[in-house]
Amino acid sequence: MNKKEIMDVLNFRHSCKEFDINKKISDDDFEVILEAGRLSPSSMGIEPWKFLVIENQELKNELGAVCWGGKVQMPTSSHLVVYLSRAAKELRFDSNYINHLLKEVKHLPEDVVSTYKGIMKSIEEARFKEDSDLEAYASEQVHIALANMMNVAAMQGIDSCPIGGIDRKAVEKILVDRGLLDTDKFNIALCGAFGYRVNDPGEKLRQGMDEIVTWIK
Amino acid sequence: MNKKEIMDVLNFRHSCKEFDINKKISDDDFEVILEAGRLSPSSMGIEPWKFLVIENQELKNELGAVCWGGKVQMPTSSHLVVYLSRAAKELRFDSNYINHLLKEVKHLPEDVVSTYKGIMKSIEEARFKEDSDLEAYASEQVHIALANMMNVAAMQGIDSCPIGGIDRKAVEKILVDRGLLDTDKFNIALCGAFGYRVNDPGEKLRQGMDEIVTWIK
Repeated sequence: MNKKEIMDVLNFRHSCKEFDINKKISDDDFEVILEAGRLSPSSMGIEPWKFLVIENQELKNELGAVCWGGKVQMPTSSHLVVYLSRAAKELRFDSNYINHLLKEVKHLPEDVVSTYKGIMKSIEEARFKEDSDLEAYASEQVHIALANMMNVAAMQGIDSCPIGGIDRKAVEKILVDRGLLDTDKFNIALCGAFGYRVNDPGEKLRQGMDEIVTWIK
Repeated sequence: MNKKEIMDVLNFRHSCKEFDINKKISDDDFEVILEAGRLSPSSMGIEPWKFLVIENQELKNELGAVCWGGKVQMPTSSHLVVYLSRAAKELRFDSNYINHLLKEVKHLPEDVVSTYKGIMKSIEEARFKEDSDLEAYASEQVHIALANMMNVAAMQGIDSCPIGGIDRKAVEKILVDRGLLDTDKFNIALCGAFGYRVNDPGEKLRQGMDEIVTWIK
């Protein structure tokens, strides 16, 4: 892609405040957005994410009603994603999940699995003694997946909005009541709405390059 | 872009373990990568990031020597980015930085600035009483910028590697000694190396779509 095309994608993406309720993202298009999430990198390759993809209008409305940051975006979106991140005990070096990941997903031989777990153990001891620290780290990785999905949406002319302004307790209750969330295994990281814009966005206002970049030549 | 082209970008990007020290990213290409970071979304629009872009070989070597996750990537990279995230006191609703952002970057009128700060204050009281919580939230936003930069690198055929395995204390000392980091204002989030691969990557191994996605139709 040339620079003009890339800048067009970067400028197309904005935090869309209202989606056209009559326009649905096709399954084919959304599949590519999901691939962007699935193929995202994560620290130590832990893929600590799960995506609840909500097309159900009633559920979108229900969530929008308890999330001040998504009041309009959630109900009007074509696809609303609730980003879950793995709970701390899922991510400890000796968990079933990590074992599954190393053996059945990455197909690592037994001796490499041992070495890998040893490294994870020492990282845990150094940086993640507290569950909350490990969960903050997992949530960071989920933000990489979110960014990649918004990017690939924009590459397809699809709008998006990251939504952090959510009532996590209320969202948790709604999802647990519907059997969609196992709070032993997952936390709610944030939401992301996808669809097609109603209005064109205003000018993108950001700090200048000189304010956020220092070059060391 | 069509799906094939998008999937090519997604598959091109991998966590590159060694870069070709003889290939440098052009200023023009890197400028677009930086634009991807600069134009990234962030919660409440706080843009809590700063990018130290290191081309200096001596400094890349020095950092590589203290970062087990970047031993090869850092010294061989064309451009090594240290991602800084704003410290908690910089992000409080009544800080100079937030004031600057709202007034001089977003050009919001005085009454909107007041409303905005009021919302930030209530979010802080609800979610970010502890500085560490606010800093974890800032670091999440920095991961969005990182992901966007790796994406746009891939769109230009440029490789990258996110590097979380760093000795933050040692990196901090190196940067402070060179006058590159004000620890009152910034924390070290992680690093990202950019350049051109030496070796082609292995197969991308990830959990299957059915393991990470739940559809609610």
